Amino acid sequence: MNFHTKYELFRAYFERALGIVFERETEGAPEMLAESMRYSLEAGGKRVRPVLFLATLDTFGYAWEEEIALATAIECIHTYSLIHDDLPAMDNDDLRRGKPSNHKMFGEANAILAGDGLLSLGFHLLLKEATRSKRHLAAGEILSRAAGVLGMVAGQSFELFCEKQPEKFSEEELLAIYRRKTSDMIAAPCAMAATLANCFKEEFLHFGEKLGMLFQLTDDILDAKSGEDCDKLTATQIYGIEGAEKMADAWAEDCKNILKKIGADTTFHEYLVDFVRNRKH
Amino acid sequence: MNFHTKYELFRAYFERALGIVFERETEGAPEMLAESMRYSLEAGGKRVRPVLFLATLDTFGYAWEEEIALATAIECIHTYSLIHDDLPAMDNDDLRRGKPSNHKMFGEANAILAGDGLLSLGFHLLLKEATRSKRHLAAGEILSRAAGVLGMVAGQSFELFCEKQPEKFSEEELLAIYRRKTSDMIAAPCAMAATLANCFKEEFLHFGEKLGMLFQLTDDILDAKSGEDCDKLTATQIYGIEGAEKMADAWAEDCKNILKKIGADTTFHEYLVDFVRNRKH
Repeated sequence: MNFHTKYELFRAYFERALGIVFERETEGAPEMLAESMRYSLEAGGKRVRPVLFLATLDTFGYAWEEEIALATAIECIHTYSLIHDDLPAMDNDDLRRGKPSNHKMFGEANAILAGDGLLSLGFHLLLKEATRSKRHLAAGEILSRAAGVLGMVAGQSFELFCEKQPEKFSEEELLAIYRRKTSDMIAAPCAMAATLANCFKEEFLHFGEKLGMLFQLTDDILDAKSGEDCDKLTATQIYGIEGAEKMADAWAEDCKNILKKIGADTTFHEYLVDFVRNRKH
Repeated sequence: MNFHTKYELFRAYFERALGIVFERETEGAPEMLAESMRYSLEAGGKRVRPVLFLATLDTFGYAWEEEIALATAIECIHTYSLIHDDLPAMDNDDLRRGKPSNHKMFGEANAILAGDGLLSLGFHLLLKEATRSKRHLAAGEILSRAAGVLGMVAGQSFELFCEKQPEKFSEEELLAIYRRKTSDMIAAPCAMAATLANCFKEEFLHFGEKLGMLFQLTDDILDAKSGEDCDKLTATQIYGIEGAEKMADAWAEDCKNILKKIGADTTFHEYLVDFVRNRKH
């Protein structure tokens, strides 16, 4: 099976299962809340994080179909961060993935609550899954750390801090933002899968961190090319688009070098590096 | 030891320990994020939820000093809800406990992130504590459910829905809001403590639910007397202040009747009912 077919298999399976988990977990919730949460959760996107999680489990021959709840937790926490990030007080984005952002559809108050609801649901799933085994609990702790005040929330806060005077900051701050805002939440699915399978934990964490850095870098390059987000501290601001492209090539190479040291079939992950590097949106 | 001395003992011990847990868990977080989270966490209040949790543990002779992390999780999740509730798009409150609300001090973007950070930290503590024992995990699940899309977030969303046309709704909706918005997060500390001690779980859950209803009812009475929040669906709107006062007396009585059926020394809880019923703020 080639990479794109396999990616699509994981993505399609996950999206179907996500809907089932979501309806089960929100049964009895107010319709307005469930609707606004569902809207952003179903808005699609590439589903990189859950696919990475499931595909990494698959690398180990692990029955990945049994870990949909954890994959859903990953996507819920990622989606909450997009909703809150789009709010007028934050990035003030009217569009997300070509559709009206959550607060444009449902109003600011509902969007704040939809984000709070998705964050709570994500963590609730982690706690429920933790009852299955110690490894599941450990996997939950990994995501919890990546999402929290030393991970994604820290990244958002630090970015906000640097945004006010981006010219005062340079590579050190940039890498800290990339690491926490994006890389932690992409490394987590890798580390969670390796923890469940109890194989190559350090190696997959390391790979995921580098892939996450590449993901944010290519995001910034795509934004710079389309003229967006220019008041933020980004790699293209420091190095220009061409410099950032060279950096991305080097980081993609780093990712592949890490994979070479892992004694498992990481063909999917190798293609995923190119997929992240070469994507057009 | 009389009730007020005992309450103060739990409150003072908790506040000191809370500071230690907070500093430990946010070491390495961006200063702006930690500062805005700390501001609301240290803004005080009565600490009813953690005190109720610790005092209920004490009722069973359980070493409550060992459960400060769970008490902190309870307070983190409660505090995040206050920060987000005060935001301009929600209740738009400039003051909280006589001090500027979080967004008035730090701006809206930081307040959103401070709330997200406290919610994440609360859940992170639940996952960390879950590694200690199955009972700790079960206690975490209780709080997780109470805080989430079937609990507090549901209550906030349903209140928002009813706020638009309060005249269309009546007792059924009011009780649903009270139950989810407030009562679930007051019942949770009782149920968590009883779960840890493995004693009278149903009974303490039942007591906490009723006490939580009473808490929200007396809150609404206090607000009505001071002329606040009159565009919401409240008991004073439906029954008038006098009617709501009678309802509060009856609910306080209900709380005490539940306690009488519990075969443990619930003297503290009896006084707590009066404390909630008779408080002036």
